[in-house]
Amino acid sequence: MTYGSVDRDGTVTQGGYSTHVVVDQDFALPVPEGIGLAEAAPLLCAGITVYSPLRRWGAGPGTNVAVMGLGGLGHLAVKFARAMGANVTVLSQALKKRDDALRLGAASCYATSDPGTFSRLAGTFDLVVNTVSATVNIDPYLSLLALDGVLANVGVATDPFSLSSRTLLSQRRVVTGSLIGGLQETREMLTFCVERNLVADIELIPAEGINEAYERVLASDVRYRFVIDNATLA
Amino acid sequence: MTYGSVDRDGTVTQGGYSTHVVVDQDFALPVPEGIGLAEAAPLLCAGITVYSPLRRWGAGPGTNVAVMGLGGLGHLAVKFARAMGANVTVLSQALKKRDDALRLGAASCYATSDPGTFSRLAGTFDLVVNTVSATVNIDPYLSLLALDGVLANVGVATDPFSLSSRTLLSQRRVVTGSLIGGLQETREMLTFCVERNLVADIELIPAEGINEAYERVLASDVRYRFVIDNATLA
Repeated sequence: MTYGSVDRDGTVTQGGYSTHVVVDQDFALPVPEGIGLAEAAPLLCAGITVYSPLRRWGAGPGTNVAVMGLGGLGHLAVKFARAMGANVTVLSQALKKRDDALRLGAASCYATSDPGTFSRLAGTFDLVVNTVSATVNIDPYLSLLALDGVLANVGVATDPFSLSSRTLLSQRRVVTGSLIGGLQETREMLTFCVERNLVADIELIPAEGINEAYERVLASDVRYRFVIDNATLA
Repeated sequence: MTYGSVDRDGTVTQGGYSTHVVVDQDFALPVPEGIGLAEAAPLLCAGITVYSPLRRWGAGPGTNVAVMGLGGLGHLAVKFARAMGANVTVLSQALKKRDDALRLGAASCYATSDPGTFSRLAGTFDLVVNTVSATVNIDPYLSLLALDGVLANVGVATDPFSLSSRTLLSQRRVVTGSLIGGLQETREMLTFCVERNLVADIELIPAEGINEAYERVLASDVRYRFVIDNATLA
């Protein structure tokens, strides 16, 4: 259901801007009572993308989880990891989002622009979730992992990752990646959100606000997802 | 107990060439009945180095395991993985060791110098154990992994590993490393070797053969470990 292609009936496909869509029931997810549709929207992409590796790699009580980047994915990773019982640290370029990080559930927030952060936190984390899509030198983050620690990348970078073999081998560290999640796990996540009273932090905008919102996304001025109200498209 | 340093009594330390050594009983491993001392020697380094990741990442019946490089570590990885019940493939630069690979327990052997190998085996393996110490472009090997497949590196390379983020993310692939193993797991491995009647393939040499053996190691002409008989040092 891409945008701007030719549909079976010859009209232009509307993609995510459609007001109606026909879908096989096996591929439809019921949004549970207790979650607003607007707050649910980012859960179905950003949410499941971070929920899946947190579950797979055992975020929970007694584990130290770090989240790289506090954006659309990162803010949900912090909420989920905290709700799972983990001790959460946010690693952000600067400290300007520190208050938000703590409010979302992080126990601490460190600036990655400060080299002291990497010596201070060396060998600390059981799991680091990298939500940054830009190319990041992940090697220094690898050294933040404890024995058997996991660096899970959910942002697709254009440049290849570069890893020191010595850092990787010395503590049986793990580097992995994850793309979104399956239908079953997405249903599980939605149930988890209802139980923990947890949704995405969004700003609901009408269709005419899209251009402005786009500029604000480029300026990293969104806390933490814009959701377009399709009813305003009519 | 390094070689060529000054010992407490002022004499020169002999390292691995010592005829006697005093060690705390907690750090001594009993070599079980049924394993010759010479065949046991490489198990305590090369053996445990490959045994540990095979165990950790679940090599066993129904799994497809590939071993990169058929040397001292690789030949033991093949034996162990086969004894654990896995279906084993050897990935070697050329096919000159093919007969050995099959004799050691591999079901198949492919030449990595043939680009067709990588398209033929794409998405095949649950576990790839990289025993190559030289710098290898591991990115093509990453694409050989199935969903949730693991590339475990046990050779320390001087150059960093380079990984495509897209290949890593798309099948939740895992890249990890491992260095030798603990005392408990080494004891477990020795018991496993006795039970499966499995030892290292060695060539026992006297001390006066060291220089020749060294040249043969450089020429990759060793099947698959030289063991020096210390009794010949006297």
